[in-house]
Amino acid sequence: MKEDEITGWFRQQRQLSPAAIPIGIGDDMAQIALDHGASVLVTTDMLLDGTHFDLQTATLEQVGYKSMATSLSDCAAMATIPLAAVVAVALPHGWGGRQLQALHAGVVFAADKYRCPLVGGDITSWKTDGRFAVCVSMLSKPGDKPPVRRSGAKVGDVICVTGSLGGSGLRRHLEFEPRVNEALQMVQIADLHAMMDISDGLSTDLNRICGQSGVGALVEASAVPISEDAKAQADPLAAALNEGEDFELLFTLSPEQWGKLHRVWDDPVPITEIGVITNTGRMKIRTPEGRVLDLPPGGYDHLAMEV
Amino acid sequence: MKEDEITGWFRQQRQLSPAAIPIGIGDDMAQIALDHGASVLVTTDMLLDGTHFDLQTATLEQVGYKSMATSLSDCAAMATIPLAAVVAVALPHGWGGRQLQALHAGVVFAADKYRCPLVGGDITSWKTDGRFAVCVSMLSKPGDKPPVRRSGAKVGDVICVTGSLGGSGLRRHLEFEPRVNEALQMVQIADLHAMMDISDGLSTDLNRICGQSGVGALVEASAVPISEDAKAQADPLAAALNEGEDFELLFTLSPEQWGKLHRVWDDPVPITEIGVITNTGRMKIRTPEGRVLDLPPGGYDHLAMEV
Repeated sequence: MKEDEITGWFRQQRQLSPAAIPIGIGDDMAQIALDHGASVLVTTDMLLDGTHFDLQTATLEQVGYKSMATSLSDCAAMATIPLAAVVAVALPHGWGGRQLQALHAGVVFAADKYRCPLVGGDITSWKTDGRFAVCVSMLSKPGDKPPVRRSGAKVGDVICVTGSLGGSGLRRHLEFEPRVNEALQMVQIADLHAMMDISDGLSTDLNRICGQSGVGALVEASAVPISEDAKAQADPLAAALNEGEDFELLFTLSPEQWGKLHRVWDDPVPITEIGVITNTGRMKIRTPEGRVLDLPPGGYDHLAMEV
Repeated sequence: MKEDEITGWFRQQRQLSPAAIPIGIGDDMAQIALDHGASVLVTTDMLLDGTHFDLQTATLEQVGYKSMATSLSDCAAMATIPLAAVVAVALPHGWGGRQLQALHAGVVFAADKYRCPLVGGDITSWKTDGRFAVCVSMLSKPGDKPPVRRSGAKVGDVICVTGSLGGSGLRRHLEFEPRVNEALQMVQIADLHAMMDISDGLSTDLNRICGQSGVGALVEASAVPISEDAKAQADPLAAALNEGEDFELLFTLSPEQWGKLHRVWDDPVPITEIGVITNTGRMKIRTPEGRVLDLPPGGYDHLAMEV
């Protein structure tokens, strides 16, 4: 089973009451209704040594920062306001206060910067061999606008991304800025139909928006903003389309709303129009030469398409 | 550094605004204020193969149940109402849908039983060697009464526990019932001054209540309810005092309120008076023979005291 199949299976196991749980499994955060019309959103992210970072090259400060920034990016993906975080760790044998203080420094750097205080946690240790794992769970609340979901993309919508994509593994995945403020600014300016953060690569994550919205997409290859780190690679476009951990925002909105957003937007973080939502139910990409090809999730391969 | 020293260090690093975070680091859950007077509480618990369970003997259903029940016990410890849970997992190489479905069965068994739906999660895998870890984060809300903290014990209070203690490692730690309903019933009947759940053993956890409340305690050895599993051990009292993972409630209240609670209580889960809060600032235990000895956290040793 692939991740999306497993997530889908989980989602089908229990019917959540929409009154109690307005947003359940399958979005960037779940939303829980509280009394007096209030609600809170929650996300959890587990980061593992050797998978999401490598302690041979990354510092514990960087790991602490990344673990918070990953969850902050989920808050951004719904355009919600971060409230508080709890951090649970699994420590290798022999670790103690020194390592925890280094991790803590990275956690609170992000917590302070994004006004999302660390309010609790859990410290556990492997009894035998075991590598370092850190799990951040974060709460947020809706701003003036309702949380933006993955499922609202409409045929004819413009597809946009913040920042530039690809090559994150080189350096950016440890240092990225979650787009919390940009997301909150955007929903003040325009009505967004669908949004998520790009954690598994543009082609994979756009496929999730398409799947949950019941639509297709046509991406303009020449419009995809390619990061400097991706440009150094053999196939920069494939890197921008398929590589994960960009933690940029991917969203759709009507052409009218895009015009408005585009006109007003003066944040240093650029927003780029990269394509359009279609009624084909499939993801396609138009090459710079004008050929329209399938865009498989995670599978765009420049050389394969040339065959 | 010991766990409590590390937690204390973390707590001192940032001054949390009491208006935004009424309860911060160091209690069973943190409380976050929301608009319109609403608030939500959050806890996170990381459980590791080889530390908190052993997959050589425990099933994944049991682990799923325990991971939820551990966090539900935190909700009980504050006398709050569970709302929703998210579950993050770190999977060993080669695990997939089959293992996740077994884990899920245990998670939703607890979720259904305690009306605390699973609303999201994160599935990650170790790239190389790595053992199974599961991290549950849970939200709750206050009931009619404010959350019961660790810091409210008063000199003269009666000290009580639910259920019976010790020997949990034999079997009960995988199957225990979190005392969610009992806690909510108790606060309807009586005003509790301090409460927590016993996760690290009575002597260790009572020391936390004493430390945070600035008081001492005198425990009556003959009054401590010893579980059947502990009675089979060489030193049943030491097992009841020191062993962890009882997940029973430890609380204090005035003698008047205890009289009221004791009179009305008809739940199948017993409540037992085990001692009194003192102004000595130290934890003591009175042996059945009437001798008053120090009760070091985690360190009660029947044989050592006989010397």
